[in-house]
Amino acid sequence: MQQDRILLDHGSGGTASKQLIEELFLKYLDDPVLSSLQDCAVIDNQAGRLAFSTDSYVVDPLFFPGGDIGSLAVHGTVNDLAMGGARPIGLSLALILEEGLLFETLERVVASVARCSKECGVPVLTGDTKVVPKGKGDLVFINTSGIGMVKEGVDLSPTKVRDGDVVILSGGMGDHGVTIMTRRAGIELKGALRSDSAPLHMMVSSLLNGLPAGTVHCLRDPTRGGVATTLNEIAESCGLAIIVEEDDVPIHPEVASGCEILGLDPFHLANEGKCLAIVDGAVGERALEIIRQAPHGEEAEIIGTVASGERGGRVILNTGIGGRRIVTSLHGNPLPRIC
Amino acid sequence: MQQDRILLDHGSGGTASKQLIEELFLKYLDDPVLSSLQDCAVIDNQAGRLAFSTDSYVVDPLFFPGGDIGSLAVHGTVNDLAMGGARPIGLSLALILEEGLLFETLERVVASVARCSKECGVPVLTGDTKVVPKGKGDLVFINTSGIGMVKEGVDLSPTKVRDGDVVILSGGMGDHGVTIMTRRAGIELKGALRSDSAPLHMMVSSLLNGLPAGTVHCLRDPTRGGVATTLNEIAESCGLAIIVEEDDVPIHPEVASGCEILGLDPFHLANEGKCLAIVDGAVGERALEIIRQAPHGEEAEIIGTVASGERGGRVILNTGIGGRRIVTSLHGNPLPRIC
Repeated sequence: MQQDRILLDHGSGGTASKQLIEELFLKYLDDPVLSSLQDCAVIDNQAGRLAFSTDSYVVDPLFFPGGDIGSLAVHGTVNDLAMGGARPIGLSLALILEEGLLFETLERVVASVARCSKECGVPVLTGDTKVVPKGKGDLVFINTSGIGMVKEGVDLSPTKVRDGDVVILSGGMGDHGVTIMTRRAGIELKGALRSDSAPLHMMVSSLLNGLPAGTVHCLRDPTRGGVATTLNEIAESCGLAIIVEEDDVPIHPEVASGCEILGLDPFHLANEGKCLAIVDGAVGERALEIIRQAPHGEEAEIIGTVASGERGGRVILNTGIGGRRIVTSLHGNPLPRIC
Repeated sequence: MQQDRILLDHGSGGTASKQLIEELFLKYLDDPVLSSLQDCAVIDNQAGRLAFSTDSYVVDPLFFPGGDIGSLAVHGTVNDLAMGGARPIGLSLALILEEGLLFETLERVVASVARCSKECGVPVLTGDTKVVPKGKGDLVFINTSGIGMVKEGVDLSPTKVRDGDVVILSGGMGDHGVTIMTRRAGIELKGALRSDSAPLHMMVSSLLNGLPAGTVHCLRDPTRGGVATTLNEIAESCGLAIIVEEDDVPIHPEVASGCEILGLDPFHLANEGKCLAIVDGAVGERALEIIRQAPHGEEAEIIGTVASGERGGRVILNTGIGGRRIVTSLHGNPLPRIC
């Protein structure tokens, strides 16, 4: 490590996060399941394949248009399981509360967790609460872990991505990130700017059931670090280039304006209800159709392709004005506490 | 709720915690597995019985004689699984770090997690890291969740406790709690005062394998709230009285002195490597022998019995000087951030 202190950037999901994981955590924790650094761990055991995932939520503010820390905590972990190809079975819920937190606030959060858990059909199965003294936390932090079962034959991984695959994004990019950032900056934008916080397990289930076995290669939800960071991680893992057509990338106009005002790149903004699906080119159109018919997938588009002719491990954007640029992972412009 | 703000007491594992769970969480979250409020969730599914547990760790200070936040995070969740009768399979590890935390500190914590996980034979399978701005957290908070498998025929619950059962405590009471409290108060005591942070899954495995099926009725680790709170919860669940013989309760002399100096009741102090086993009276001596031969069980004692003749739902202490007193759950004397 070059620095000797933790910086906000280490929690941003970009290259500093990656460095922290690689240089510190993997130095000590070397289980092969953990080391594969997927969104969720899939464990082979005598009882079938079990998926297990964890995420903490420290979003600021707690409540925002389109969601709150409770909805993120449910959707985020349900989505991590779904991205592993799992059918979610249940969640854990662990809260770290700051002394002096209003019960009313906590009740709103818990009610949101309960509502989202019910809507998803994924129950909270176990929990824990700790309280820290005033000034040693910030209202509410949540951890949810989740378990799920993975069907026989489902094996998703960025290393499965092949030349000729197509890349589908399930809807408008950057909604969550720009909602939080404008909210925090105190900016009111016209239009219906709101977080996309939503569960994706039904979409994933439709996709896996509706396509021939083995044609879905990789699923990822582009949360912290955004579409750019997620695609870069996939490109690095498979060693191929990912070519994205800027004009095909769905983005809501209010997100585009918000990004201009705040000087943000929407490719780096967190999404909390979007899926990147990388599927065999032969089933691309069929996959798009399935995603569009699934909940939260109506605005899906094929945004790019995987190519071996280009320099591998990179994400290249064909811009709307006819140029080309390399899309890099989020770095050096931390967007803290986005989820 | 009578108060409208969260108090430190709500995180102490005593009656205020219980009230928060019953009046708020169970109001919204009503899955029967969660509602049983056991240390860990055991889930029936087509693939066998899976155990799933979660705990956050916010101990202050991070490092103390006998352990650290990393050892607690591993042992605590391994023990929660073990108390459900499960063989732990794996853990998740989620960190909430404060901006400015020294890498050196983080590295010590992660190294401790790795060492304990290796010693337990329970790998960390998935993880997450968030960073919050300076002053919005306190160095390191950890959540670990855990999954495990429960063997056919194992069914542990305080509702299984019967008249004539014996209560075994696997070693000296209060070591962890008094270590943290004296450390925080800046008091140096003579002797080897240290936390009992230790994994109990091997002990539980020996017990379940070594006794006839169905004779182990309930296992609990008396962490926050101590032996008193845990026994009260069991007594309330089974509706019987638990009679404890004070002279039989193991306690290290340095713990007894520390409690006197600090004005603490050792029955209310957290333990992080102790098990309360409630077993059929007929196998009490055999159970004691098995626990004494297991790792971390050498100082085990039979400390009491379960009786139907007394007023049910209470814990009664026959004191060393020939008196009797009701032992109550921890309340109104919060011991915050003990784990």
